[in-house]
Amino acid sequence: MKEEQERARRPGGRSARVRTAVHQAVSALVAERGYGNFTVGDVAARAGVADTSIYRRWGTLEALTKDVALAGLTAQSPIPDTGSLEGDLRAYAAHVARDITGPEGPAVLRLVIALSTAGEDGMRARDDFLAERTRQMEVMLDRARARDEPTPDVLAVVDHVLAPMYIRSLFGAESLTPGYVDDLVDHVLRTLTGPRA
Amino acid sequence: MKEEQERARRPGGRSARVRTAVHQAVSALVAERGYGNFTVGDVAARAGVADTSIYRRWGTLEALTKDVALAGLTAQSPIPDTGSLEGDLRAYAAHVARDITGPEGPAVLRLVIALSTAGEDGMRARDDFLAERTRQMEVMLDRARARDEPTPDVLAVVDHVLAPMYIRSLFGAESLTPGYVDDLVDHVLRTLTGPRA
Repeated sequence: MKEEQERARRPGGRSARVRTAVHQAVSALVAERGYGNFTVGDVAARAGVADTSIYRRWGTLEALTKDVALAGLTAQSPIPDTGSLEGDLRAYAAHVARDITGPEGPAVLRLVIALSTAGEDGMRARDDFLAERTRQMEVMLDRARARDEPTPDVLAVVDHVLAPMYIRSLFGAESLTPGYVDDLVDHVLRTLTGPRA
Repeated sequence: MKEEQERARRPGGRSARVRTAVHQAVSALVAERGYGNFTVGDVAARAGVADTSIYRRWGTLEALTKDVALAGLTAQSPIPDTGSLEGDLRAYAAHVARDITGPEGPAVLRLVIALSTAGEDGMRARDDFLAERTRQMEVMLDRARARDEPTPDVLAVVDHVLAPMYIRSLFGAESLTPGYVDDLVDHVLRTLTGPRA
């Protein structure tokens, strides 16, 4: 749980309060209107701060939105350290499932996807989102390799654990039950820990 | 290939020309502005038809957009019939990969996802998209069962063949090479043709 503490921002202070209010305003506007349908002025009005405070701190709406998406992501999905890869992946996948089925979860995912059509800044935000998820998983996989556990490739975990959960969440196809999420993890560990074809 | 013919609309005639022009206008507007950022009036102007023609035929922008998404989907991904499940799934997956990496592919996917935040009509459009994909695959899986081939559950194909391709396309993570797509199909056939846990 060390990573969680390292990543926690210092609490308190006006700067932190502004950041929280602005982040909440962006999340609310994304949920209500969708990305691309609000301006920095809308965010400022909702958060009760001046437009100039937002421009000074974040520069552009894209940069702000990316900050919100990454903050939501890193705050919500801590990297577990249970002593075994199976335990870590099960705990991690359960966290991700809870996040993306929670009230704001699909909004963050949709936001990242919408960003990818929003020019170069948006593309970078999307790439950063995936890089952050990949980095989180590599921490778990590296620990498993150090313990000499059979370990899948990080892309195998993206393809066969995260992708099914994301797609089911985005398409609202089925609920992500704990049994279903555990099965995804078990299937990857059972079938994809050798060298990939 | 029977399903393709059954689904083909009668060609020619003013009605068909209007439909084509309106569909092209919607696709162009989705690609340029994103769903939610244009009106029926914009579509009519781009297609060179009267607003009233669109309202009379489709009722709402959501219904029209759903029609465009489903038409694109069914036209682009015919159901192969190669004589073996492996051949069918490889051909089908290759088709889907080509569609979603093509110039309009991610736009259709993003559209369906955006629709899911667009009220009840949008939710129905999204559900219809998934139902259509599922129906296409069930045709192949039913034929395989009739031939007594070991056959995965349709949701296993959604989770482990379609979901990785969709997520990689949406996040732009990696290109969908033919070898990668074949590996996804082989992996499902090798590991998920028994009864699911």
